[in-house]
Amino acid sequence: MISQTVEYSLRAIVTIAQHGGAPCTAAQISAITQVPGPFLSKMMQTLVRAELVTSKRGLHGGFMLTKDASELTILDVVDAIEPLKRIRSCPLGIASHGVMLCPLHRHLDNAMAMVEESFRGVTIAELLNEPGSVTPLCEARTLTTINLGGASNRPPRDLRAD
Amino acid sequence: MISQTVEYSLRAIVTIAQHGGAPCTAAQISAITQVPGPFLSKMMQTLVRAELVTSKRGLHGGFMLTKDASELTILDVVDAIEPLKRIRSCPLGIASHGVMLCPLHRHLDNAMAMVEESFRGVTIAELLNEPGSVTPLCEARTLTTINLGGASNRPPRDLRAD
Repeated sequence: MISQTVEYSLRAIVTIAQHGGAPCTAAQISAITQVPGPFLSKMMQTLVRAELVTSKRGLHGGFMLTKDASELTILDVVDAIEPLKRIRSCPLGIASHGVMLCPLHRHLDNAMAMVEESFRGVTIAELLNEPGSVTPLCEARTLTTINLGGASNRPPRDLRAD
Repeated sequence: MISQTVEYSLRAIVTIAQHGGAPCTAAQISAITQVPGPFLSKMMQTLVRAELVTSKRGLHGGFMLTKDASELTILDVVDAIEPLKRIRSCPLGIASHGVMLCPLHRHLDNAMAMVEESFRGVTIAELLNEPGSVTPLCEARTLTTINLGGASNRPPRDLRAD
């Protein structure tokens, strides 16, 4: 129900948010998120187009969030990549149903509405600061700090997804 | 989030349930559900393999539910076609996370759990008998009774999805 691309994008956004405001390179994001480079590249373009992320070229360049992580919800990321498909009118085009959905389509749409509501209620900052829990992508982040060190754009072998 | 195939399968199950216990032919299901014949055929095979439906060959053959619609939930159909992907352990394989998910993956999995719970709580019979609402696939059903009449296996032109 949540596509791999959406989950990968959330990993990327969390990774950038964890980077403390400094630009985060594609190599760093790829190593931390375990998302293969070419796939990550396309995904980041989509996030830039959706204006959730900006990219800065050059030596100290990389990706940054366009707004504070406390203003960015899970739903914002989902909507940028693959919006939840709500059922707004009868998918069979039955005239008497119209926007008054039958119980089948109403139950399916209710489930989507619940998910939408749940994702709207959680910001990226909250994911990072939830008390008493493990930090998202934490170990991968430590490994990257050790292994990347600016020397290579290639993710460490144990984190490569390709 | 709910794939087209899952939604189509629910249309087919509802159609068979509405048929009052008599076998329902592929042509009838295709006309009522607006699911194109070849696609429907594959989908019905999956539902037969999942033992939600049996097929009877011959002149008065067709598809029937294996159990009463009051014992069949939306979740049973979803699970037969494309089970909801729950997150049971850290998708990044981070050792210290394991089954204790980080807030990112816990929130995503909570949403899936809510959907699962919602679908588990509604039977096909309840979809058909919900008071004060329109009946699923009702107009399409009426049209089919008029147009099919056993004379043709081809869905009426206005209901064809191909």
